[in-house]
Amino acid sequence: MSEPIIFDTDPGVDDAQAIAIALRHPDIELLGMTTTFGNVDVDTATHNALLLSELAGQRIPVAQGAAVPMVKPRHPAPAHIHGANGLGDIALPAVTGQADARSAAQFIVDTVNARPGEVSLVAVGPLGNLAAALQIDPGITERVKRVVVMGGSIKEGGNVSPVAEANIFNDPHAAQRVLTAGWPLTLVGLDVTHRCVLAPQHMERIAAGQGALGEVLAGSYAFYREFYQGALGIDGCCPHDSLALAWLVRPELFTVASGHLNVATEGPAEGQTLFASEGREFIAPRWSQTPLADVCLGVDGSAVVDWITETLA
Amino acid sequence: MSEPIIFDTDPGVDDAQAIAIALRHPDIELLGMTTTFGNVDVDTATHNALLLSELAGQRIPVAQGAAVPMVKPRHPAPAHIHGANGLGDIALPAVTGQADARSAAQFIVDTVNARPGEVSLVAVGPLGNLAAALQIDPGITERVKRVVVMGGSIKEGGNVSPVAEANIFNDPHAAQRVLTAGWPLTLVGLDVTHRCVLAPQHMERIAAGQGALGEVLAGSYAFYREFYQGALGIDGCCPHDSLALAWLVRPELFTVASGHLNVATEGPAEGQTLFASEGREFIAPRWSQTPLADVCLGVDGSAVVDWITETLA
Repeated sequence: MSEPIIFDTDPGVDDAQAIAIALRHPDIELLGMTTTFGNVDVDTATHNALLLSELAGQRIPVAQGAAVPMVKPRHPAPAHIHGANGLGDIALPAVTGQADARSAAQFIVDTVNARPGEVSLVAVGPLGNLAAALQIDPGITERVKRVVVMGGSIKEGGNVSPVAEANIFNDPHAAQRVLTAGWPLTLVGLDVTHRCVLAPQHMERIAAGQGALGEVLAGSYAFYREFYQGALGIDGCCPHDSLALAWLVRPELFTVASGHLNVATEGPAEGQTLFASEGREFIAPRWSQTPLADVCLGVDGSAVVDWITETLA
Repeated sequence: MSEPIIFDTDPGVDDAQAIAIALRHPDIELLGMTTTFGNVDVDTATHNALLLSELAGQRIPVAQGAAVPMVKPRHPAPAHIHGANGLGDIALPAVTGQADARSAAQFIVDTVNARPGEVSLVAVGPLGNLAAALQIDPGITERVKRVVVMGGSIKEGGNVSPVAEANIFNDPHAAQRVLTAGWPLTLVGLDVTHRCVLAPQHMERIAAGQGALGEVLAGSYAFYREFYQGALGIDGCCPHDSLALAWLVRPELFTVASGHLNVATEGPAEGQTLFASEGREFIAPRWSQTPLADVCLGVDGSAVVDWITETLA
């Protein structure tokens, strides 16, 4: 059965690969994309979402959203990781389509309410659009099927601070709102994305299988790979955002725990996700008072990489 | 060569075992104990430090210190873990000696300054006494040999909150001061103490080898063991505080990394220790601006348990 989803994204090299999966996988029905600042500014995110859809020969609605965080100042986009254009600074074809007239938040609300209980939100950037959707229609918590968030880190440590993952760090106030909203939610964070490394030979298969879209995926991957080689000493890349879709379609590859999430919004731990396992007692009840959510703590990394490669090859 | 130390403590069941090691091991010269609130109130901590020394047939100076945290309100002592008397609520013999007239902080300053470059501080409770010593004589950072702190957690998660270890949580402001003071410092936290489990058969050997002191160690251990069985499902106890002495005497059993420590003092991550490995770059330099310290990230747990048992058997 095909899962209808809205993909909330800031493409971004790993976003681009995930978008290609969402466009291609028979078990995913991509209803639309909503865009946010994050890996790039929001205008670039919207441009890239439109472009990737067109390169796949599809016209998927794209609705633009958050340009800045809810509370904190915006941190500059990481051009050394994703390129200034979000796709490794390779030359890109022109875009012919244009964005939906609605805001990302309104698009989410309209789409969820049109098919109550059916639509999943898959969010792989800072969470301002989901927070804004909750603000204009809090009742969507009852009508969304599931929310899958690529973000956070429980025991793995952070990638932008010692404890914070970039998507949560980029808008911790939005994350606190979204991760504690009480809707069915699964967090797919660095504890699992760091277990997956997409190597050059995988990308060669993907490039060969995806035509014009494959050229963009492979070209941007080459840029992203240089960051991983330089900063982390790995030959290959963690396909962070694709993991959210892998969990949606192949949940049996993941180890998941139920518990309570909180987000640090201030101080040196700003952007950290705190996870209190269901039933575990701490010194005070305050960590266990948010609604239950699911958190991915383990994964069969090579099986996920194979799934990504086979989907796109 | 014997290491002269001051042992800063809040006994506490695992503190009691560590004190027994400090009193007995030929490579440790126990110059004095300083006491703090933590596992128990500070008067009980002082009583227990005097008692344990007397049971070993020694008269070690004991100087009383912090009764409360520097900034936050004091959280009640965990009587369900250590007993209301700190030693598993077993009946205890009377104490004949009395505490040093000086405060813990003054005792630390006097003792360090009397033997410049020779004295190590081994702190296994909340860090108010070391912070107070830094306040009355900041120059001790140059004259102390080394500071060894049992506290914190880098990747292991917390024991009183999802991310905070009890000693740091109990006085995060003091911890921030002590862990960033720029003296030679090693953090021995849950990343290593949770790798060590002292089982009942180890405690039987210790009880047999320690006379009147062994009876107290075994009796209090039995109470502590019930907590571990109930709350954590382990038959045995983590000998947290003894690990600080194990590192001092047998550092080759540990894997240590150098980097920058910070402490979250507010919010849901209150009491968390953040560790930025030396040379690792994050989104902003703020996590890498504190002086370098050493952090224990791995240990040969069974070798440490053997070392504890052989020291006390």
